[in-house]
Amino acid sequence: MSGGFDLDPWRLRWSDLALDQLHRTESVFALANGHIGLRGSLDEGEPVGLPGTYLNGFYEEHALPYAEIGYGYPEAGQTVVNVTDGKIIRLLVEDEPLDLRYGRALHHHRTLDLRTGILSRVTEWESPTGKRVRVSSQRIVSLTQRAVAAIHYVVEPIDESGQTQLVVQSDLLANEPIESRTRDPRVALALKSPLEGEFQRAEGTRAVLVHRTRQSGLRVAAAMDHEIEVRDGLRTDITVEDDLARLTVAADVPVGEALRLTKFLGYGWSSTRSAPALRAQVEAALAGARQTGWDGLLAEQRAYLDDFWEAADVEIDGDDELQQALRLGLFHILQAGARGESRAIPGKGLTGPGYDGHAFWDTETFVLPVLTYTVPEAARDALSWRHGTIPLAQARARVLGKTGAAFPWRSINGQECSAYWPAGTAAFHVSADIADAVARYYAATLDADFDAEQGTELLVETARLWASLGHHDPHDGFRIDGVTGPDEYTAVVDNNVYTNLMAQKNMLEAIKAAERNPSVAAHLGVTPEEIETWRTAANRMRIPFDDMLGVHQQAEGFTSHEEWDFEGTPGKHYPLLLNYPYFDLYRKQVVKQADLVLAMHLRGDAFTPEQKARNFAYYEARTVRDSSLSAGTQAVLAAECGHLDLAHAYLAEAALTDLNDLHDNVGNGLHMASLAGAWQAVVAGLGGMRDHDGQLSFAPRLPSALARVAFRMCFQGSRIQVEITQGSAVYRLVSGKPVDVAHHGEPVRIEGEVALDIPAPPSHPAPSAPKGREPRRRTKAGGS
Amino acid sequence: MSGGFDLDPWRLRWSDLALDQLHRTESVFALANGHIGLRGSLDEGEPVGLPGTYLNGFYEEHALPYAEIGYGYPEAGQTVVNVTDGKIIRLLVEDEPLDLRYGRALHHHRTLDLRTGILSRVTEWESPTGKRVRVSSQRIVSLTQRAVAAIHYVVEPIDESGQTQLVVQSDLLANEPIESRTRDPRVALALKSPLEGEFQRAEGTRAVLVHRTRQSGLRVAAAMDHEIEVRDGLRTDITVEDDLARLTVAADVPVGEALRLTKFLGYGWSSTRSAPALRAQVEAALAGARQTGWDGLLAEQRAYLDDFWEAADVEIDGDDELQQALRLGLFHILQAGARGESRAIPGKGLTGPGYDGHAFWDTETFVLPVLTYTVPEAARDALSWRHGTIPLAQARARVLGKTGAAFPWRSINGQECSAYWPAGTAAFHVSADIADAVARYYAATLDADFDAEQGTELLVETARLWASLGHHDPHDGFRIDGVTGPDEYTAVVDNNVYTNLMAQKNMLEAIKAAERNPSVAAHLGVTPEEIETWRTAANRMRIPFDDMLGVHQQAEGFTSHEEWDFEGTPGKHYPLLLNYPYFDLYRKQVVKQADLVLAMHLRGDAFTPEQKARNFAYYEARTVRDSSLSAGTQAVLAAECGHLDLAHAYLAEAALTDLNDLHDNVGNGLHMASLAGAWQAVVAGLGGMRDHDGQLSFAPRLPSALARVAFRMCFQGSRIQVEITQGSAVYRLVSGKPVDVAHHGEPVRIEGEVALDIPAPPSHPAPSAPKGREPRRRTKAGGS
Repeated sequence: MSGGFDLDPWRLRWSDLALDQLHRTESVFALANGHIGLRGSLDEGEPVGLPGTYLNGFYEEHALPYAEIGYGYPEAGQTVVNVTDGKIIRLLVEDEPLDLRYGRALHHHRTLDLRTGILSRVTEWESPTGKRVRVSSQRIVSLTQRAVAAIHYVVEPIDESGQTQLVVQSDLLANEPIESRTRDPRVALALKSPLEGEFQRAEGTRAVLVHRTRQSGLRVAAAMDHEIEVRDGLRTDITVEDDLARLTVAADVPVGEALRLTKFLGYGWSSTRSAPALRAQVEAALAGARQTGWDGLLAEQRAYLDDFWEAADVEIDGDDELQQALRLGLFHILQAGARGESRAIPGKGLTGPGYDGHAFWDTETFVLPVLTYTVPEAARDALSWRHGTIPLAQARARVLGKTGAAFPWRSINGQECSAYWPAGTAAFHVSADIADAVARYYAATLDADFDAEQGTELLVETARLWASLGHHDPHDGFRIDGVTGPDEYTAVVDNNVYTNLMAQKNMLEAIKAAERNPSVAAHLGVTPEEIETWRTAANRMRIPFDDMLGVHQQAEGFTSHEEWDFEGTPGKHYPLLLNYPYFDLYRKQVVKQADLVLAMHLRGDAFTPEQKARNFAYYEARTVRDSSLSAGTQAVLAAECGHLDLAHAYLAEAALTDLNDLHDNVGNGLHMASLAGAWQAVVAGLGGMRDHDGQLSFAPRLPSALARVAFRMCFQGSRIQVEITQGSAVYRLVSGKPVDVAHHGEPVRIEGEVALDIPAPPSHPAPSAPKGREPRRRTKAGGS
Repeated sequence: MSGGFDLDPWRLRWSDLALDQLHRTESVFALANGHIGLRGSLDEGEPVGLPGTYLNGFYEEHALPYAEIGYGYPEAGQTVVNVTDGKIIRLLVEDEPLDLRYGRALHHHRTLDLRTGILSRVTEWESPTGKRVRVSSQRIVSLTQRAVAAIHYVVEPIDESGQTQLVVQSDLLANEPIESRTRDPRVALALKSPLEGEFQRAEGTRAVLVHRTRQSGLRVAAAMDHEIEVRDGLRTDITVEDDLARLTVAADVPVGEALRLTKFLGYGWSSTRSAPALRAQVEAALAGARQTGWDGLLAEQRAYLDDFWEAADVEIDGDDELQQALRLGLFHILQAGARGESRAIPGKGLTGPGYDGHAFWDTETFVLPVLTYTVPEAARDALSWRHGTIPLAQARARVLGKTGAAFPWRSINGQECSAYWPAGTAAFHVSADIADAVARYYAATLDADFDAEQGTELLVETARLWASLGHHDPHDGFRIDGVTGPDEYTAVVDNNVYTNLMAQKNMLEAIKAAERNPSVAAHLGVTPEEIETWRTAANRMRIPFDDMLGVHQQAEGFTSHEEWDFEGTPGKHYPLLLNYPYFDLYRKQVVKQADLVLAMHLRGDAFTPEQKARNFAYYEARTVRDSSLSAGTQAVLAAECGHLDLAHAYLAEAALTDLNDLHDNVGNGLHMASLAGAWQAVVAGLGGMRDHDGQLSFAPRLPSALARVAFRMCFQGSRIQVEITQGSAVYRLVSGKPVDVAHHGEPVRIEGEVALDIPAPPSHPAPSAPKGREPRRRTKAGGS
């Protein structure tokens, strides 16, 4: 058992009723394809933790309130909307509605299969009056037909004899009641009933509803069609209202027979297309899905996933819980990014309304490295979204008095929605993170079209931001003052090392891109003088270092700040931000999440091994990991510094964050960046994979508890596998051309299979975490 | 003319109708006694800029909205309430209401007399139907009977013959309609009709209304009584409703005669007393006022003011506009502080609803020095208010994880109301400013009772705050990180010099107070170890200095920050905070208001003359003075550094800020701190008065345009006058014991009259202000 799920390398099974855990399981069992997201709620709609049907990019707008307004504060917030729910299939057994809060569940389990992509559910239920039925459902959100989801729903009477009257109601339901999660009455009002009906139509087994949001003016269409199988005596009826379309199927079914229903769902949304156009679009999607058929959709899904696992699988021998969690994480990252097609990848994917459905830097820094090396076209699509928002980012930079593009801290449509500027607007590093992801994608794919059409512009516009944000000072070189780095317990500081190193890389990558694409650069107005500006700024970049302590300062002055009183901080006071004011967190040496340590991962080329070891130990003792963005990175650097068992522990924390609900909020959605961080912990941590300057290198080493780790990657069109055992590593070319890499600093060409010895790890004193903030796992690692 | 007022050394007269300027004149003509404030609106209620009747400390509460909440954010805001308006006396001439928007004003002027304290008004008006009357009114808010205001109102027909029917309505009006000034609909709602009627009664010529606020639950009572004189044919009627009490007086008055009405007003409020008790209180106040009578009230007022001017007058020869403005400023400071009696002195006094009626550090740093040396008992009362709020300040410190007392950035009742913590909570210097005011008051009065009962506790609790806010660091000594100094264009910085020096003084003064009052200190739990902690922290206080530039850094790193592009900043972009984001202001070398320069005034003992000159020039070039708290301080340091004409210019700006409406907001109330800053510019600037360590010293010098400046002060029970001419200074003992001071560093005993030569000023290159931000005056200085 892991977090309540059965241990299985390819499946997640939950056999408990545990209705108080519905929020959690709905998130873990969410199905998505990057465009449509369906939370794993029960077919019958209730009981429910949090119903959720999301379309990537579909949001409602609301005013942001400020008690004291400031120039340039964003005026409008955006919140993901729970759109028309097509998941609901209600069942009446004789005159009793199937509801797990009543009657008796004789048998009940739900299973997510990571190879088929099917969420299945089997419930044997005895109604309060003693009638028994078995309900079996299977649900998919198609990875091949992006506008389509489908449910196969089977009811069988399992009484000893006789026949049972069954009434099945299959709904499209808009403006579903949802428990409000906000303190702000105006936001709650905006989201209470966000959709206005525009068009409804039902006929035969088909129905369509078109709605529009009140403030943001976005239009959504949802359609359903059905195939019904039952031996005889079937009555169907279809009705439609503004917010509800309902197919009702009634049948008397004898023991040994079944009522089978396949429900096809089509979804679409647009900010510009008309209601008739949108209706046509979803009806066409339905027609396609019916043409493919349920079995066809399953076959396509399996084939898609087989290909994904060939490219991306991670194998762990010696920690079954971790094995399961890592595959689940990869599956959800795929689901978040697969068919986004120029929409953002939100922090929670499409698994819940957490963070209001916003996308953050998490995407570029944590999720895109995974996609770049496993589903590169998904990484490209996510970067295309950023490219499409350049005009908004340029406008934002102008408001802030800067040139280039200032990408938003949090957004759905590309407009800044962060209402607290010290931890939002000031976190300019998001723009360098995007540039980093662009450079990584290009190096891993050599995608010249992207480079010319989108990548270069992204690099140039972000480089321009840095050139205007920083300045040359006679004291210290090129400084970037008054910004916030990744650590959200420190804000608005000078010369954050992470930001400065990422900005440095940003400017150097912009130079390279401009040189690769001279006509694009000319079109963007890049001059030799501007290139020289970037080069000079990059060369003179200030990187504060504390000579007395021999460590880098996370930002100017950091190591002079007061130490946090970890001994005097009880465990229940974490996360600290809920129990201490920002002012006190900001001014002390307490780190929410890897910041300098993340710089040592992504810009490892800027540190000596000795600096890395000293810095890691220093910041390890001050990092409380109140963020899910940290454990994976701490694993990576722990591994590099030779602390392999610690790396294993952080890897497990990152991988199990959601399964074990370490942050007590998985009900609002999964932490995509933490799942991605677990992959990074394996690949960049245990595998030692780095891609500085586009050069792929590995430095594999195993912790003591693992017998074997193998992972796969795509690189420049080839697929490779790296297999690590204690003492040696085997590199395999799975498909494509040979790939040149380094193994612990030595050049290696991967062609066929290459086995190499692993040198002994560096030896440094074991670092220690703040009291009580050691890596967490909650359940025991190991066998089933 | 100065800002539209006639030039006169003792009077402000406005002879223009200029109905669009009513906001302004209502503020300038406001009458107050520290308890009651009446804006100078017309008797007839309309037209009106902003009606306003305030009781010090009386507020309504409302929720503070946050789009993103943080731990420790204040949840409730407070806003001063326009209470029951007793100023209104309406007049019907035949059947036409006197309204200056209609008919014709043949003659109209309003005059505030600074020696009598009377606001008088004479209007000769011709109604639309041709009837002419003269209305003469006189209004006072008693400085001797703090619950009382009174109006003497006379109407005379001035037609050539015949008699005129006059109807006078004298009102008490609650929940007066007011144009909303807030963006927040919830705040607007809370303040739309804040008072709920609890009790009403009217009989004869008397009426009383008792109301209560909806949220804060404060209760207010207003009562009126009248004396009426008219030869014959009088009809009176009195009515009362929830929100209105009205005495109606009708008479037919022949030419050559008059209808005379004296209206007595009594006000009181309480958070605890019952409606009957409060009613009794205001009726008793009325009885007292009627006993004294109108003429008696005027005589008391004159005597009170004669004594004030003997103690406090400032004379200027050579700049009539400045002479008038300085006396007006002193008068308003007196009105703000005179009878506050343990209530705060708000930033706007009781002259308008600006800053929501909140008190800030302005009071202690700018207003209390004036009161300490002119009306010391008013300074004591204001500090008593702070003392009474110690429990709230202790609780706030606990929320912030600190010991001692953290006084609020802005408040009416002592609870923090600042919704933007980087410029609120983080500005901890307010607590050191209070300590500074305590130390100054004690040194200037040797008030041992206050010292033992209140002062020592204020010093000890604030010293404790600093001990817990700062820390000893091996790099730099005792640091105070992550706080905001006076300059609001720089926030959340390390080692702000102003803050650190004021904290240093705070801790040293606490030690002295504890040593003066050992039993009090013991009662407060002060141990020898704690005293040692304060001494060590004070001795090791970090004061950042830029060796390369040879100037102090306003805060750590300030002089490495990017310069503001003053050349590229158009004049219409000031104040900068309305046109640039905080993030960009905070990270650059642009200073809103004197910060390091204020440190050089209040802690001048911590700088060498050479440092002062270099620092002044450096910060002068970077200070935009978008705050009214700056010009006075810049004048003080300009004078000390020998830039005497510049000091004169800054003095004029400070003094004329309100009369000339330099910040375009005087309609919301006068800037008490700017008026006080003007006094400081004279006394500490031209007079060179300092009180470091309680030792009074002077260094008088005149700018070229002034022939003579004389000012008076109280010190340890004596009154002195300092008279400065070009080349020499005369010190006079006005009353009391001889006073020991220094004159340009030489000890002098003021006894009788002492004349001394003035040495030549130091010579430094003329500093320059940012482009377009030189001192402002708007109208020409000089003769009438």
